[in-house]
Amino acid sequence: MKNITIPIQKIKEIAGEHGTPYHIYDEKVIVNRLNQLISSFNWVPFKEYFAIKANPNPHILKIMKENDCGVDAATVSEIKLAEEVGFEGEDIMFTSNLTTLEAYQYAVERGCIINIDWAADIYELYEAGIIPENICFRLNPGSIKNEIMGDSSESKFGSTASQIREAVAFLAKKDIKNIGLHTMVVSNENDPAIFKEYTEMIFSFARELIDEFKIEVDFINIGGGIGIPYLSEEEVDVNAIAEAVKESYVKVLSNSDIEAKIFMESGRYVTGESGYLVTEVIKEKETFKKYLGVDASMSDLMRPGMYGSYHHLTNITAQERGEEEREVYDVVGSLCENNDKFAVDRELLKSKIGDLIIIHDTGAHGHSMGFNYNGMLRNAEFLYTQNGEFKKIRRDENFQDYTNTIIGGY
Amino acid sequence: MKNITIPIQKIKEIAGEHGTPYHIYDEKVIVNRLNQLISSFNWVPFKEYFAIKANPNPHILKIMKENDCGVDAATVSEIKLAEEVGFEGEDIMFTSNLTTLEAYQYAVERGCIINIDWAADIYELYEAGIIPENICFRLNPGSIKNEIMGDSSESKFGSTASQIREAVAFLAKKDIKNIGLHTMVVSNENDPAIFKEYTEMIFSFARELIDEFKIEVDFINIGGGIGIPYLSEEEVDVNAIAEAVKESYVKVLSNSDIEAKIFMESGRYVTGESGYLVTEVIKEKETFKKYLGVDASMSDLMRPGMYGSYHHLTNITAQERGEEEREVYDVVGSLCENNDKFAVDRELLKSKIGDLIIIHDTGAHGHSMGFNYNGMLRNAEFLYTQNGEFKKIRRDENFQDYTNTIIGGY
Repeated sequence: MKNITIPIQKIKEIAGEHGTPYHIYDEKVIVNRLNQLISSFNWVPFKEYFAIKANPNPHILKIMKENDCGVDAATVSEIKLAEEVGFEGEDIMFTSNLTTLEAYQYAVERGCIINIDWAADIYELYEAGIIPENICFRLNPGSIKNEIMGDSSESKFGSTASQIREAVAFLAKKDIKNIGLHTMVVSNENDPAIFKEYTEMIFSFARELIDEFKIEVDFINIGGGIGIPYLSEEEVDVNAIAEAVKESYVKVLSNSDIEAKIFMESGRYVTGESGYLVTEVIKEKETFKKYLGVDASMSDLMRPGMYGSYHHLTNITAQERGEEEREVYDVVGSLCENNDKFAVDRELLKSKIGDLIIIHDTGAHGHSMGFNYNGMLRNAEFLYTQNGEFKKIRRDENFQDYTNTIIGGY
Repeated sequence: MKNITIPIQKIKEIAGEHGTPYHIYDEKVIVNRLNQLISSFNWVPFKEYFAIKANPNPHILKIMKENDCGVDAATVSEIKLAEEVGFEGEDIMFTSNLTTLEAYQYAVERGCIINIDWAADIYELYEAGIIPENICFRLNPGSIKNEIMGDSSESKFGSTASQIREAVAFLAKKDIKNIGLHTMVVSNENDPAIFKEYTEMIFSFARELIDEFKIEVDFINIGGGIGIPYLSEEEVDVNAIAEAVKESYVKVLSNSDIEAKIFMESGRYVTGESGYLVTEVIKEKETFKKYLGVDASMSDLMRPGMYGSYHHLTNITAQERGEEEREVYDVVGSLCENNDKFAVDRELLKSKIGDLIIIHDTGAHGHSMGFNYNGMLRNAEFLYTQNGEFKKIRRDENFQDYTNTIIGGY
């Protein structure tokens, strides 16, 4: 049982008028998460840089802007999306990797914070005369001291401590004495102990750099990584996480001469729970298992098919008709691909063709990961605004869109 | 070591003129595979229905048309693609699932062969007056008699034998006495013994239906499922597979009154080996492992990231410079997603920035599975025709394409 924060009546109305499947996001939930996050870090200068990849619709990015957040862009396309709603300069963190000089140039010209994945890039940038005003380095801690954080040495991201040290020494000689640091070693994690552990690691590294090179660390971007409760309606205790970060901050960094800001680049935590994928049961089928076929597919939400992720499902129509019987189903999409399943062996209220099923927590890494496999077209997005308006913010893809890049003459 | 069938000089030229990454397909390889497939089944009336999802570019579909093949469409979008190059009627097999009446209608009106996934749909079709001329049923054999074929009971596809029996009884009463049968229980498989086993199963089922209902089974679609040698340059022994199918055909079906055609819906086997993804090394990086960063990503080829699939890599530039040293690399794309890796711990010729790397066997389920995650744009496709021409058959996606469905006013 999970809450649905959008009026059911309206969800049904949109389904009737526009058709299913569609994505809908609740602005209130997004703003609420931002407020929770920001207020839990009120003990330190703090800024959230929303991870665009989680939900790149400009209408969503605009909510970040209105709530004094920045955005985190992984590619030049994402910087362009951010620019569409007026983000500029230091409000854009460019956290790319395998970054070309061309991409760096695009970001540097716009004054973005340049979060450098591969520390050695800095030498190349200087050689090419592309000098970022705001430089940040991304640390890959590798398989560090303890077991709680697991092993980052299989992660393709970031640079080692000694590589960053070398780059900082290089910058210090150029009289650049103000940098940022970044690491992201957890994903979908809610355990404060883990946040304490890994922020202590990155804070200690900042401390070492400060002491060794007499530089200032302007900010420490502790990444995203806060999970959401896909399985329950329990809220994430973001205060406990912030409290854990505070403990390591106070322990490692707090003294008169260090005032590093804390940045985050949360995606999932900010928009994940705001989103619902609304889909209709279009087929009941029983072979060796009971299947509910729905009109959404992996093109709308790839996480269950790609990672085996859990997304809660609510049959709102069965709820409304007071259905009491329950059944165990595989809930599947129509892709010609056997992993196109939203749920396997899931107990739901007994469902019928025509019922509307809500797939929960699809506000992050949902539409943005959709593909066109099997000629599937990606679906529309709606926003339920804070003042109770329902706005279509993306139309359905059509066959013309799908074939746009094909060159004729066959 | 795997062959590259396209002139290296030309691959380099296109990289220089058009830029990387790009996909390129060798028409000769496709035609060769079709010929091999068709000739190995020359002991029976045979037709290949190319699985559009493997490579939906109309220029590729046209090759199938020119070689007397049909196409297998999973969705209405795929039927439309087929129509673009002139496929019609029985040359299109509509193998959808969770099929709506609307989709059936589209296919029935065009005279496609209707491959019915869920047998009970036939009652609905009759009720709605949507009467297919060519009906086929897709069998899910479940966990059948032996271990060689594994367990299909977790597959969402098809109907049970008894469900199909019931549907055939219904049709027999309507005086429909000619149907097709379909099953597909293997994928990327080359063992003739397995093909013998499962075709014996579907042939026996046909035999039972013929005897029980005095109907004719016009064709048996034995699915796709022929694998390709991702790991070596050894050719698939499609003759051995066809021979195995023949053995069960002769054993089960051959007598004076049964002359069922054999259909296949191969995708991977036909175009997989024809395709190369050409990408450039844009970053060398060594943290806790050695990385080669390339400009292609999961947006161009999702199989390694999604399924952990092996694709062979050849550094053609290192080969040309006579590089003798070898190194072990992770070859990665730039997606902000740690599974964006084309190879893990792969030994390659020592590589440098600017080198061109060929990713092999990307002609099936390559471009067609690409997504736009991280704002990544999908890349161009080229065809190396039989007469030695190089044709651009799809342009690069651009930012305008990417943002086309977003509704303004933010």
